[in-house]
Amino acid sequence: MKRLRMGLVGGGPGAFIGPVHRIAAELDGEIELVAGAFSSDPERSRQAGEIYGIAPERAYASYAEMFAAERQREDGIDFVTIATPNHTHLPIARAALEAGIAVMSDKPATATLDEALALADVVDEANAPYALSYTYSGYPMVRQAREMIAAGAIGPVRKVVAEYLQGWLAEPIEMDGNKQAGWRTQPGKSGLGGAIGDIGVHAFHLAEFVTGLEVRTLCADLAAVVEGRALDDDASVLLRFDNGARGVLLASQVAVGEANGLSLRIYGTHGALIWRQESPNRLEYRHLDGRCEILTTGLGHLSPLATAATRLPAGHPEGYLEAFANLYRDFAQRLRGEGSDILPGIADGVRSMRFVERAVIASRDGLGWVALHEHDKECVA
Amino acid sequence: MKRLRMGLVGGGPGAFIGPVHRIAAELDGEIELVAGAFSSDPERSRQAGEIYGIAPERAYASYAEMFAAERQREDGIDFVTIATPNHTHLPIARAALEAGIAVMSDKPATATLDEALALADVVDEANAPYALSYTYSGYPMVRQAREMIAAGAIGPVRKVVAEYLQGWLAEPIEMDGNKQAGWRTQPGKSGLGGAIGDIGVHAFHLAEFVTGLEVRTLCADLAAVVEGRALDDDASVLLRFDNGARGVLLASQVAVGEANGLSLRIYGTHGALIWRQESPNRLEYRHLDGRCEILTTGLGHLSPLATAATRLPAGHPEGYLEAFANLYRDFAQRLRGEGSDILPGIADGVRSMRFVERAVIASRDGLGWVALHEHDKECVA
Amino acid sequence: MKRLRMGLVGGGPGAFIGPVHRIAAELDGEIELVAGAFSSDPERSRQAGEIYGIAPERAYASYAEMFAAERQREDGIDFVTIATPNHTHLPIARAALEAGIAVMSDKPATATLDEALALADVVDEANAPYALSYTYSGYPMVRQAREMIAAGAIGPVRKVVAEYLQGWLAEPIEMDGNKQAGWRTQPGKSGLGGAIGDIGVHAFHLAEFVTGLEVRTLCADLAAVVEGRALDDDASVLLRFDNGARGVLLASQVAVGEANGLSLRIYGTHGALIWRQESPNRLEYRHLDGRCEILTTGLGHLSPLATAATRLPAGHPEGYLEAFANLYRDFAQRLRGEGSDILPGIADGVRSMRFVERAVIASRDGLGWVALHEHDKECVA
Amino acid sequence: MKRLRMGLVGGGPGAFIGPVHRIAAELDGEIELVAGAFSSDPERSRQAGEIYGIAPERAYASYAEMFAAERQREDGIDFVTIATPNHTHLPIARAALEAGIAVMSDKPATATLDEALALADVVDEANAPYALSYTYSGYPMVRQAREMIAAGAIGPVRKVVAEYLQGWLAEPIEMDGNKQAGWRTQPGKSGLGGAIGDIGVHAFHLAEFVTGLEVRTLCADLAAVVEGRALDDDASVLLRFDNGARGVLLASQVAVGEANGLSLRIYGTHGALIWRQESPNRLEYRHLDGRCEILTTGLGHLSPLATAATRLPAGHPEGYLEAFANLYRDFAQRLRGEGSDILPGIADGVRSMRFVERAVIASRDGLGWVALHEHDKECVA
Repeated sequence: MKRLRMGLVGGGPGAFIGPVHRIAAELDGEIELVAGAFSSDPERSRQAGEIYGIAPERAYASYAEMFAAERQREDGIDFVTIATPNHTHLPIARAALEAGIAVMSDKPATATLDEALALADVVDEANAPYALSYTYSGYPMVRQAREMIAAGAIGPVRKVVAEYLQGWLAEPIEMDGNKQAGWRTQPGKSGLGGAIGDIGVHAFHLAEFVTGLEVRTLCADLAAVVEGRALDDDASVLLRFDNGARGVLLASQVAVGEANGLSLRIYGTHGALIWRQESPNRLEYRHLDGRCEILTTGLGHLSPLATAATRLPAGHPEGYLEAFANLYRDFAQRLRGEGSDILPGIADGVRSMRFVERAVIASRDGLGWVALHEHDKECVA
Repeated sequence: MKRLRMGLVGGGPGAFIGPVHRIAAELDGEIELVAGAFSSDPERSRQAGEIYGIAPERAYASYAEMFAAERQREDGIDFVTIATPNHTHLPIARAALEAGIAVMSDKPATATLDEALALADVVDEANAPYALSYTYSGYPMVRQAREMIAAGAIGPVRKVVAEYLQGWLAEPIEMDGNKQAGWRTQPGKSGLGGAIGDIGVHAFHLAEFVTGLEVRTLCADLAAVVEGRALDDDASVLLRFDNGARGVLLASQVAVGEANGLSLRIYGTHGALIWRQESPNRLEYRHLDGRCEILTTGLGHLSPLATAATRLPAGHPEGYLEAFANLYRDFAQRLRGEGSDILPGIADGVRSMRFVERAVIASRDGLGWVALHEHDKECVA
Repeated sequence: MKRLRMGLVGGGPGAFIGPVHRIAAELDGEIELVAGAFSSDPERSRQAGEIYGIAPERAYASYAEMFAAERQREDGIDFVTIATPNHTHLPIARAALEAGIAVMSDKPATATLDEALALADVVDEANAPYALSYTYSGYPMVRQAREMIAAGAIGPVRKVVAEYLQGWLAEPIEMDGNKQAGWRTQPGKSGLGGAIGDIGVHAFHLAEFVTGLEVRTLCADLAAVVEGRALDDDASVLLRFDNGARGVLLASQVAVGEANGLSLRIYGTHGALIWRQESPNRLEYRHLDGRCEILTTGLGHLSPLATAATRLPAGHPEGYLEAFANLYRDFAQRLRGEGSDILPGIADGVRSMRFVERAVIASRDGLGWVALHEHDKECVA
Repeated sequence: MKRLRMGLVGGGPGAFIGPVHRIAAELDGEIELVAGAFSSDPERSRQAGEIYGIAPERAYASYAEMFAAERQREDGIDFVTIATPNHTHLPIARAALEAGIAVMSDKPATATLDEALALADVVDEANAPYALSYTYSGYPMVRQAREMIAAGAIGPVRKVVAEYLQGWLAEPIEMDGNKQAGWRTQPGKSGLGGAIGDIGVHAFHLAEFVTGLEVRTLCADLAAVVEGRALDDDASVLLRFDNGARGVLLASQVAVGEANGLSLRIYGTHGALIWRQESPNRLEYRHLDGRCEILTTGLGHLSPLATAATRLPAGHPEGYLEAFANLYRDFAQRLRGEGSDILPGIADGVRSMRFVERAVIASRDGLGWVALHEHDKECVA
């Protein structure tokens, strides 16, 4: 099987997510990182290329240069991964797609809803696939939960509690030069949303992904808890889904002591499913009679997607990198022309950006319950 | 030490909470159940009296009869415990206090806010103490948390997540003659609130009790999820506290698979505390640097109140009955004239009823954010 | 129902287990503490009697005096609880039984095997019941496990891992006047065994109680880890049961950081059960296919004995005192002439003492595998 | 940085560990699988090579052929990974080392102690490094524990409990053609030990690796629980370490419901550390006063080795593949001539085989306590 060739924009020295993309993409031996525009500083890009072990001439100083050069090569990149701050996602994705290069983009899709809608048009026109790295949807037990709910294991969903709690921004570390904190707390680079855009969108996507429902209306309370911060670092959002189910979404980056506390609790008419990212290989399946079953990855009777997303026997923990690798495997499958309807795409990106924008505005302007879509206005509670 | 004499209203055959009151009250050997009006059916009351092992002539057919008769006895009851449906709390408490008999009442204080305010007047006038059984405030680690926060262990509180999730009303069991479900789902007996009045008030009280803060405004989404139910069985409420902290309170009785899922997560500027009722002897103390300490009852270095509320060495689990017994111990102390400022009283009852009423009305009428007190109106977000 | 009258030997000022017996015995309203010989110092016994709230004339200076006086009273004690150091168990139990007073004795039955055998003869002759407080056998989920195994839920047992780990004797606190540590580390008062006699016997009893099997042979490694200690404070014992199953029993009081770490893991041919005392209300039921079910007290489908041993609905934790109270309830039932085959008696006491003695001697003399009974000698591996 | 070139022996169709080696080796971008003798069937080897994506001419029909051919290439393999049944480890490792090719071998080092000693001689003579894949020693929190103990965090070690419990051989699946079970239960392919050789050696190595102590004597009880099995599938071993500490090692493959239950509990004079493989990113650090700290990967204050072994921020789970990759990273470092004293080598292999052989013989012949080394005989208890 020929390996797919990957380019990377971003992920230069000091970045967290760049190496993660490299590992995840290459994990299953189907993809190889061969080119990159790792930094806008040519020297730093070159250095990064060396660390990544790619050919010197394929460490470019800009994504434009990379797309132009790679198009000329017979062994040019099949796709590009975008791992840069949010405000650059649109131009890079547009340029790639217009060059016929497929795109795997970091979430959120863009910095604003308008940009996301613009990107959706580009994707519609493009001949190349576009995917969005909602990493957590790659965990086997998340997929297990999705398939169980679709199969009626808990009955119609009534209540969803989605949380994403972190504590790393509990102090104003962006003032002390923390690069990760820096751009995330800057409206110009992050977009309208702070915590809600950075991590709330993961919880939002996961809630819809697992339940198969769509959020219709919401009521948001966002706060910039740390003094001097322009964007929210704490968000609580009440939700209503299209089937009438209620939901609560919490996203915070000032929840001291929480590392990466993403969790999902879904209650149906006759069962419930509970998943926590920090113990990703287990899924609690609770029954009406109070019994609680613990399902774990690697067992023989899991769903097809969960089984396919697991590389090791039961009891051998897989983690974040393997979940991410599952997205890349889905993506590779799509690039090879095989279907995969589970991979997040621009529609998910638009929905998420809509969520961020509506939540930010509704909270800021004290609007109470608002519709996610304009045309849903009539159904506001 | 002379044992205090206790009377009981309610708690007849089939009741859950009556025997619990008896065990909790008598656990430490300071109180003895000696009289009761266990049922409005004289024969059933007599039978219950026999089971409780009290003298036949002290098993009364009504609380009025009991108060009248016991006042005449030299060894008459020192206090009465009220363990009846909510709508009867006010008349019974009033009659007791007017007879100079102290009151330990089941929560909520009354069925409505108006009743609670009326009761507050009665309590103010009375010569006898009144206490409200917010049982969970009797757990050692809840008190430990309160004292730690008061001492600055986590810094000023920024975010509170209080949950009380149960699943036992996920099906319309009140239709099948379930007595517990019956009165709780009936507006005439339960009051304005369903789940929010039955269990939401516990979470509300606990949040204020532990943080030392007061809720100022709220935004509620209540639902009667099970078809045909008149009162809410699921509630999500956003909160703001007087120091500006944000909060979320969840109360549900349709969360399938949850038994008695009361929990409290409190995030401050430099620490966090997490307590879960179903593992009541542990308290997580998280630090800004990510370290998590597990404190457990019985250890040598706990706070004075936590230590006093524990009977056994570390590793010997205490539970709900012991927590309840702690309230009775506080109550006995008060009856003996010693101070105890930790015991919930009518002020807590009024606050809780205000919370229920404001949440129910705000949710029903789509009011968005509302003040808990009228005079706080100006501070509505 | 007439309350049974209880006397107590031991449990004076500073004792841990005395008040525990009082609470446990009285919890369900069937028993009342009315007399005691709480201390060999008459004044201290009188003081204790006052704290316990019993009539002054029934606080005796010795058990002999108590038995003599109570026999003369029409309302004399129905039974006596023995809560004194091990070396006094035999004389007190003998005196009580010979006076026709039933006995609830702290474990271990006696300080030595010879004493236990002597006591067995006394019990055989006596007209009054004798019970041994293997408290942990009173936990609902322990009884649930026993009934599940008897019903074949995990198939024939193959492997048992029983642990009882504590850390409170990790330092030589007996040198600093700690009363509890004092007598437990003294051969004259404790008997042949240290940790193995104090807590190992609990694990031993529980292993046999839950599996329904009997230990046949053992291979022990006992150590006095803390310098200067005469008795073992750490024990590891390999076991073989009568059905051929293997076992491991760990008992330690120098396992730093362990509070009361009693646990039982039982593996059968097609299932396993895991119970941990510090989370006593849950029982893990694992299946051959890897699924793990969590059973919790209060659920509707538990076994009869587990259901009967639970006072509260699911999610309301019960603990050590309630488990202990279950033993007293069984005992009260027996005193009333109703059968109860689950209550530990002198046969269990003799087995346990045999276990302690064989383990101590085998370890000391380097005997390797030894039979628990002499007549099992031939089956030594 | 030039990637190191890896060859693989074994890991053909149906093998579990082959692809795992590939992923782990390549994870950090420092190593590339370029050749293999995946199967003794040339056609199957060729097919595997295709799946692994290596050049067709480098998929060899035998390891001998591979070593011969690769030596001739300028871009020949730098090292070979041996992922075949135990009885083939010695000849393959010998051939590789004699050809100057470094070796990363699956554990156990060989099938017998004699073979291990022979291999030790070969390694001594060789110019190329030899490493043994005790994978679990690659987990960050295992290394954290090792460094904490070396730094005195828990004081001198007194007690070690090492467990490795699995349930997958609870039924005689080797009779049904299960390939993994097949060779593991065959003396000719597995060696003297069954469960003790397959997984017991992991627990043994980990216990010594983390404590820094060496096992001196042991007392073993091994059993073939499933009827008809020639090798042990369940083992319990009492241990004594060179500092006098006691230990217990459990290894079982018939512990129904256990997936990969490797755990380590280490008690010192003033602290304890507890690690469980199925939750590998956390380490419990217990204190004499009963406090329990939970350390998790990614926190700022971990030890140097733990920090170096972690790729992701706190809260992003890493698992088995990443632990394995850490071993490969250490190995790559050694191949580059940089020191790494943490990588298991032939000395560990010899110790483990000695452990297996002594335990098997001592249990079979009823020897009781035996020395691990002949020259330790005098110190047998």
